[in-house]
Amino acid sequence: MWRGGGVVGRALAASCRPRPPARPCPRPPPPPGPEPPRDLALPNGAWSDAMRRQYRRLLDMAATGAWRRLPSYRSARHHLRAGPPPATGTDPPPAPPGPAEAPATPRDTRLFLRAIDGDGDGFEYAMFLNAAERRLLCLFQPGPHLEGHPGLTHGGAIAAIIDGTLGTCALAVAGRVMTANLSIDYLAPVPLGAVLLLDGRAERLEGRKVFLSCHVRSADGDTLHARATGLFIQLDPAKHRAQDGEGGR
Amino acid sequence: MWRGGGVVGRALAASCRPRPPARPCPRPPPPPGPEPPRDLALPNGAWSDAMRRQYRRLLDMAATGAWRRLPSYRSARHHLRAGPPPATGTDPPPAPPGPAEAPATPRDTRLFLRAIDGDGDGFEYAMFLNAAERRLLCLFQPGPHLEGHPGLTHGGAIAAIIDGTLGTCALAVAGRVMTANLSIDYLAPVPLGAVLLLDGRAERLEGRKVFLSCHVRSADGDTLHARATGLFIQLDPAKHRAQDGEGGR
Repeated sequence: MWRGGGVVGRALAASCRPRPPARPCPRPPPPPGPEPPRDLALPNGAWSDAMRRQYRRLLDMAATGAWRRLPSYRSARHHLRAGPPPATGTDPPPAPPGPAEAPATPRDTRLFLRAIDGDGDGFEYAMFLNAAERRLLCLFQPGPHLEGHPGLTHGGAIAAIIDGTLGTCALAVAGRVMTANLSIDYLAPVPLGAVLLLDGRAERLEGRKVFLSCHVRSADGDTLHARATGLFIQLDPAKHRAQDGEGGR
Repeated sequence: MWRGGGVVGRALAASCRPRPPARPCPRPPPPPGPEPPRDLALPNGAWSDAMRRQYRRLLDMAATGAWRRLPSYRSARHHLRAGPPPATGTDPPPAPPGPAEAPATPRDTRLFLRAIDGDGDGFEYAMFLNAAERRLLCLFQPGPHLEGHPGLTHGGAIAAIIDGTLGTCALAVAGRVMTANLSIDYLAPVPLGAVLLLDGRAERLEGRKVFLSCHVRSADGDTLHARATGLFIQLDPAKHRAQDGEGGR
C-alpha cells in the first residue's frame, strides 16, 4: 500500500494547498525509491496444508497479545528499509530484533537462512516471540534444496534453523549476542517437506551469558526430532560500537 | 572431452568399418544424453588468491598418494551420473563416498551445501581425504549469502560445513552414517570471504559409533575459529536396505 512521502509527493501536496476545498487534491504519483522488501515469513504457494494450519494456530495465539509474529527479509538491509513497525495489529507485525540494529553492508549479502531463491526450496519458516516468557516458536518446513541423505534434511540445515531460533530468542532477551556453543542431539531423521515446530527458551542468564534450550518436534507433537542447548554471549555495547560488525553468529 | 559411445556413435562407427583405410572415418557426433555434471570442488572465478594458494598446496599433498581430492556435485543424482572414478590421476579425482551409494530421488533436490546458485555466493569448498589416517581436510571460503551479523558468517553455516566435513570423514571410515550429536564451540567470528581449513578426524570407533573431532582454523593457521566434536552412527546395512532413505544427516 502506498503511504505517501518522498520529494515528489511532498511537492505535489504543497502545490495543492492553495486550491479551494471543492476541488479534490489529485492523488500524487508513487514516491521514488526501492520497493518495500518482501516479508518472507508469510504463507506462499509452497507451504503445505499442514504448515498453513500450524501458522493459523500460531496467528490465533498471537491475537491474544502475548505472542508476536516476527517478519523476515532477505538481508539485513531489507530489515532496515522496512522501517519501524506499525503501532497496532499483529499482521503486518513489528520489526524483529537484531539485524535492524546493524548498519547496512556495502555488498549484496543475504541472511543465510533466506539465501536460497525459490518459494519452498530452502528454509520456509515463521517465528513467534513471547518476550515475557523468553520463548520463541519457529514453524519450519525444510525444502528440497536442504537435502542430506536422499529425501531427508541435512543435519547442517537443522543446526542452522536451531541456531537461528536460539539466536533470535537470545537477541530478544539480551540484545546483540553471538553464539558461543551449540550442542545438538539428532534423534529422528527429518523428511524434506515435513512441518516442524522448534521451541526455543532462554533458561537463564548469568552475567552476559544466555543459556538456552531447543526442542524440535513434528507439528503434531508426536515425534521429537532433535533437542539442543545453546550458549550465547551478550556483546559489550561499548566494544560493539568501537568494532562494529565484528561480533557475530 | 567426448569419449565415444551411445547408439548413434556405435552405428556410425559400424558403418565406417568396410571403408578403405585411406578414407578416415568421420568423427561421430556427440552421444545423446545429459551433460556430465559440473564438479563444484574445482577453482572458479570467485575463489580468492588465498583460497587458490591453499588449494594448490593441498593438490601437491595429494600428489604424494596419501590424500585424494573428493569431487562435489549439486545433487545426489549428479554424483550417480558422474559414474566411477578414473583408474589413475588425482584430478579429476575419484568419486566420493556417500551420495553415490544412494538411489536418485525423483524430485529436483539439491545437496544442502551446494544449494546456493552463483559462484562464490554460498559454500565454496574442496575436501581432501586421507583414508589411512581417518582424516579429512576441508578448504572453505564462505560467500556473501552465508551472512549472520553484517559482514560475518552465520553460526548455522559454520555448523553446516562442520557437519559436512565430519559426515564425509565418518562415511569414509564406516560407510553410511547419520549424525547423532554435534557440539560446537565458536571461538572467533569468521568474516565473509575468509579462507578456512577444517581438520576433521575420526578419533575412535566403538561398535557402530564413530567419534570425531574438528578444528576450524584460518588458512594461515593463526586463528582457531571453532572446535567441535561429532558422534555419527553407522547404519545397519540390512535395515538400510529395508528402509532405504530413512537414515540421514
